[in-house]
Amino acid sequence: MTVRVGVIGAGMIGQDHIRRLTEVVAGAAVTAVTDIDGPRAAEAASRVGAAVLPSGRDLIGSPEVDAVLVASWGPSHAEHVLNAIAAGKPVFCEKPLATTAADCLRIVDAERAHGRRLVQVGFMRRFDAGYRRMKDVLASGALGAPLMVHCAHRNATVPESYTSVMAAQDTAVHEIDVLRWLLDDEIVSAQVITPRRTSRRFEHLRDPQIMLFETANGVRVDLEIFVNCQYGYDIQCEVVGEAGLVRLPDPAAAGVRTAGRHGTAVPQDWKERFGDAFDAEFRAWTASVASGAEPCGPSAWDGYAAAVITDAAVRSLESGGEVVAVGLKPRPACYGGAAA
Amino acid sequence: MTVRVGVIGAGMIGQDHIRRLTEVVAGAAVTAVTDIDGPRAAEAASRVGAAVLPSGRDLIGSPEVDAVLVASWGPSHAEHVLNAIAAGKPVFCEKPLATTAADCLRIVDAERAHGRRLVQVGFMRRFDAGYRRMKDVLASGALGAPLMVHCAHRNATVPESYTSVMAAQDTAVHEIDVLRWLLDDEIVSAQVITPRRTSRRFEHLRDPQIMLFETANGVRVDLEIFVNCQYGYDIQCEVVGEAGLVRLPDPAAAGVRTAGRHGTAVPQDWKERFGDAFDAEFRAWTASVASGAEPCGPSAWDGYAAAVITDAAVRSLESGGEVVAVGLKPRPACYGGAAA
Amino acid sequence: MTVRVGVIGAGMIGQDHIRRLTEVVAGAAVTAVTDIDGPRAAEAASRVGAAVLPSGRDLIGSPEVDAVLVASWGPSHAEHVLNAIAAGKPVFCEKPLATTAADCLRIVDAERAHGRRLVQVGFMRRFDAGYRRMKDVLASGALGAPLMVHCAHRNATVPESYTSVMAAQDTAVHEIDVLRWLLDDEIVSAQVITPRRTSRRFEHLRDPQIMLFETANGVRVDLEIFVNCQYGYDIQCEVVGEAGLVRLPDPAAAGVRTAGRHGTAVPQDWKERFGDAFDAEFRAWTASVASGAEPCGPSAWDGYAAAVITDAAVRSLESGGEVVAVGLKPRPACYGGAAA
Amino acid sequence: MTVRVGVIGAGMIGQDHIRRLTEVVAGAAVTAVTDIDGPRAAEAASRVGAAVLPSGRDLIGSPEVDAVLVASWGPSHAEHVLNAIAAGKPVFCEKPLATTAADCLRIVDAERAHGRRLVQVGFMRRFDAGYRRMKDVLASGALGAPLMVHCAHRNATVPESYTSVMAAQDTAVHEIDVLRWLLDDEIVSAQVITPRRTSRRFEHLRDPQIMLFETANGVRVDLEIFVNCQYGYDIQCEVVGEAGLVRLPDPAAAGVRTAGRHGTAVPQDWKERFGDAFDAEFRAWTASVASGAEPCGPSAWDGYAAAVITDAAVRSLESGGEVVAVGLKPRPACYGGAAA
Repeated sequence: MTVRVGVIGAGMIGQDHIRRLTEVVAGAAVTAVTDIDGPRAAEAASRVGAAVLPSGRDLIGSPEVDAVLVASWGPSHAEHVLNAIAAGKPVFCEKPLATTAADCLRIVDAERAHGRRLVQVGFMRRFDAGYRRMKDVLASGALGAPLMVHCAHRNATVPESYTSVMAAQDTAVHEIDVLRWLLDDEIVSAQVITPRRTSRRFEHLRDPQIMLFETANGVRVDLEIFVNCQYGYDIQCEVVGEAGLVRLPDPAAAGVRTAGRHGTAVPQDWKERFGDAFDAEFRAWTASVASGAEPCGPSAWDGYAAAVITDAAVRSLESGGEVVAVGLKPRPACYGGAAA
Repeated sequence: MTVRVGVIGAGMIGQDHIRRLTEVVAGAAVTAVTDIDGPRAAEAASRVGAAVLPSGRDLIGSPEVDAVLVASWGPSHAEHVLNAIAAGKPVFCEKPLATTAADCLRIVDAERAHGRRLVQVGFMRRFDAGYRRMKDVLASGALGAPLMVHCAHRNATVPESYTSVMAAQDTAVHEIDVLRWLLDDEIVSAQVITPRRTSRRFEHLRDPQIMLFETANGVRVDLEIFVNCQYGYDIQCEVVGEAGLVRLPDPAAAGVRTAGRHGTAVPQDWKERFGDAFDAEFRAWTASVASGAEPCGPSAWDGYAAAVITDAAVRSLESGGEVVAVGLKPRPACYGGAAA
Repeated sequence: MTVRVGVIGAGMIGQDHIRRLTEVVAGAAVTAVTDIDGPRAAEAASRVGAAVLPSGRDLIGSPEVDAVLVASWGPSHAEHVLNAIAAGKPVFCEKPLATTAADCLRIVDAERAHGRRLVQVGFMRRFDAGYRRMKDVLASGALGAPLMVHCAHRNATVPESYTSVMAAQDTAVHEIDVLRWLLDDEIVSAQVITPRRTSRRFEHLRDPQIMLFETANGVRVDLEIFVNCQYGYDIQCEVVGEAGLVRLPDPAAAGVRTAGRHGTAVPQDWKERFGDAFDAEFRAWTASVASGAEPCGPSAWDGYAAAVITDAAVRSLESGGEVVAVGLKPRPACYGGAAA
Repeated sequence: MTVRVGVIGAGMIGQDHIRRLTEVVAGAAVTAVTDIDGPRAAEAASRVGAAVLPSGRDLIGSPEVDAVLVASWGPSHAEHVLNAIAAGKPVFCEKPLATTAADCLRIVDAERAHGRRLVQVGFMRRFDAGYRRMKDVLASGALGAPLMVHCAHRNATVPESYTSVMAAQDTAVHEIDVLRWLLDDEIVSAQVITPRRTSRRFEHLRDPQIMLFETANGVRVDLEIFVNCQYGYDIQCEVVGEAGLVRLPDPAAAGVRTAGRHGTAVPQDWKERFGDAFDAEFRAWTASVASGAEPCGPSAWDGYAAAVITDAAVRSLESGGEVVAVGLKPRPACYGGAAA
């Protein structure tokens, strides 16, 4: 059975996912596309033989659409996801789930009312082979309880449109999600401290930033966010436990010795670094839809938690570095929590 | 358009490829299966909704089959491939292309007579990301002309059925193919020397073996074949050029520090090590069939060359270590050679 | 000319330095030893043919002593160093220079009054080849201005006598010194945050701790102190600059592949990790004494700064994690500062 | 007690050893120097306050000389070493022990007649920390019996005076010695095969070369000698045993990430790579002389074996690649052998 996917949003990321669902993932087909920019939708649809539909609502309601992929502008996410839940259709929503924690919570409530999970949020790192190996090692118990995590998230450069709060909202949000999953623990406070700024940035930007998180179990996380590091796209993660540590591997790269140096290439962007993770993410999502199972990836609750935690980080940054408590609602039972 | 693949041979490797074409590769479907063991074919076919056909000839002739995958017993390869060429259908043949150089040559001749390439041979390493990066580095010219290659191919263990000549025929054949491609050069002689045997092997087996090759350009290759190395499946390759060297990367693996050691896991078998390469290989083949292009992977000529070179290595082993010249026919123009 | 060294304190560290000066360092000889434990002094002295003297004062005054090494109990350091300065003799003082910042300052004042530097403090990391390479890279300017430093200092275990404040005073003090030197910058605030405690420690101990420092130039440092990490003695340091980063190398270690793992041994203690640095430290000190030059290693001012900064860290720990400003006096000109 | 060393030969290597014995090694002093170039001897001697003596014979006979270091022109080694043995004085001889196997054997015979070992040959690799760790791992038995060794010895460039036979005599001789020691085994045959020549060499030179050795126990060694590799001085060694392998570590080097690459510096010459090994070598030799013990380093027998094996390699090169048997005399009991 082929999963027929309707795609809302045919911008850069939407187009990349259309390509992925068409050329890379077995068992999926894109059957409908919509975008606020009609010609863009038409062009993307024609390339894969999909129908162009006038709105997200139409697309979600189409009998040719088994499952929905939301890759539109962030502020529109909540509406599309809520509509998909109302229609009882599985929906994959690119991050963020919604642009406010309140909207995320509305989605959580709607999904809970629906009675089973329909939503998967696009945090692809949980599907990265390196993080999965780390989780296996941690789960084995060989390292004892985790105590600390040291992370870095570096981009070569960012455009002028990237603002200081996006360090939390767009960049750190990936670590926030993957750490919650890796540690099977909840983040309870956030703090942002600001080193000397790099001179190689747009004037308005606070870069780098160091974020400190504490979890319910007392694990301390330090996370360097440095989005103009110049040299490449570099993701580091090290979890230190009572009896040892485990480190995220760098991507395999051919070693070259020449001109006095031994060296390897560093990835230059997230597509290169996490391309395989995106593939695996959509493969898993397609398989869950095809089998009728609940999605195995990040849930609406995870999307909500990420929103609340990034809010706390933003508030800390804006306050000049206060420790800000993360005020999550009780986790409902359907998301693995104790709340009704 | 979905490429409809007929699979000849539903043993372990055939089943793995059926799974791959069905679950992993987009744009392919297995529509027919045959096997000398009828129930085995039926079981494999039923899992993916394919027809069971009584013979390779029937399968190749079926109008429901666009392209043929040969994964049967080695001695039957030549017949199936020749039949596919006669039918004008693209055919992917697991290695070996045929069990004798003479049969390989018959396939080359048939394909040449047909007028365009239809055959791809299953040497998957050319699709491994690490080897591809090596080729990019070599092609860049940064290292000058290649002069030497140091390789190792190690398996944890082999079963009792593995014989001394299989070190060349089944094991080294992968390096033979990938080196010819990596260097864009031809192997002209082979020699096998035999170190002290490991005690951890079946009595009849000559293990390890060291193979020495020379290419037309004078590059010297040393290749350790050690199929009972105990510790894992480990593939090493280093090309030394006039101005530097490039090394095949080890697979990315999470670093763990515990109990006095920093360590990473070594892959345990070829499925783990080259799973991604197999995926990429079938993705490329499917795309070439879908587009009507000639296959981009190893050709019938490459299959023939591998057969002649492994024959030379076997003769060297059996002679006690003589240098044996590789007697290839002139390479036809359709395979990039100068011969008519 | 052989430098005749008098050693005050013949405990474990004193004996190790006696061995070093006698067997490893060219151009030095231990001619006198004193210790509050007379028989211990006698035994250490007899092994190298040195005289046993009744007190530090006698030893410092001895005409057979060109230079003094203080390796006694910490609280006695200040007195011996001040006596050596009064006698105009070069003095190497194991860390700490003194147990209070006030005493350190008395030494600084005395040395300043004397008119030239006589004191070297035993922070050996400045002589470690890895840190020196880092400093070379930073000094080259290739990485731009430093912005952040990520460090870890891990010991396998500590004895019950190790208390929570020693994390700063005995352990972090090494990073504090080496970072001031590496960055050529001053630490202006310290903060200590406390992760979940490891269960593998004595009950009274706060372990691990994370220390955060800020420098005058705005560089932010995070330093993990984990003295019961179980797996070994592990020192990590990474400086991130505007255009790249540099990492302290792990010690060279033979790679071993066996039983499914590729691994290297992690050092088990500081003697193994920094043995070469200790040798280089004493070689440099001996050479400076022999040549009549001022010592090139850490100065009395560095010892004072380390004391003030560790005091700030201790206060932060005791306050439950406040940011504590480091209140250093103006740096006198003779120590490279602007103050008179 | 200070060991008083007389140095024969004050060229580059002799001067470096004088510096080492004076500034680096504790317990040694250079008391006499001789050189066929008188002013050169005078200059070297004056720097360390040593006497200048007119000849090696005078130096060996001087009552101010406890032990002799031979660092003169290779053809003069045998005479000086024989004279030192005749005088009953410990003698350290830079490699080669003598320029012919026959002369080496005369030294062996003389030493045997003298009744105890006096000679140490300057193969410093046995004192390199990396090789020593490899030997420890092999000696532990964890890897089972060794079966194969893969080595490479690369220099950035060599001057025009370096000839093709020096690949064996001057370069491979270090691997020949260290492998015999590492494996505790004897080399019984040598073969040299010649890859395509690098274009970056003087016209007369055969570079690179690949040397193949077989040991008495059947271990097979392949050794790449490439003395114009351009990129640095690079020594590789991997021993493969029945249950795993061990690799010589690269020197610890600070990792730098910048401009799209992660890289480390490769050493540029043997002084940088083996400086610590030279120090350790002379420290051990000095200690053995001081204690009156036999030297623990490479013996006259090892120097003789190296000469015979390099002769075999040279003969193989000159024959166009024949396998040449190594014809060693029976090893006398005083060198650990069975012969009387």
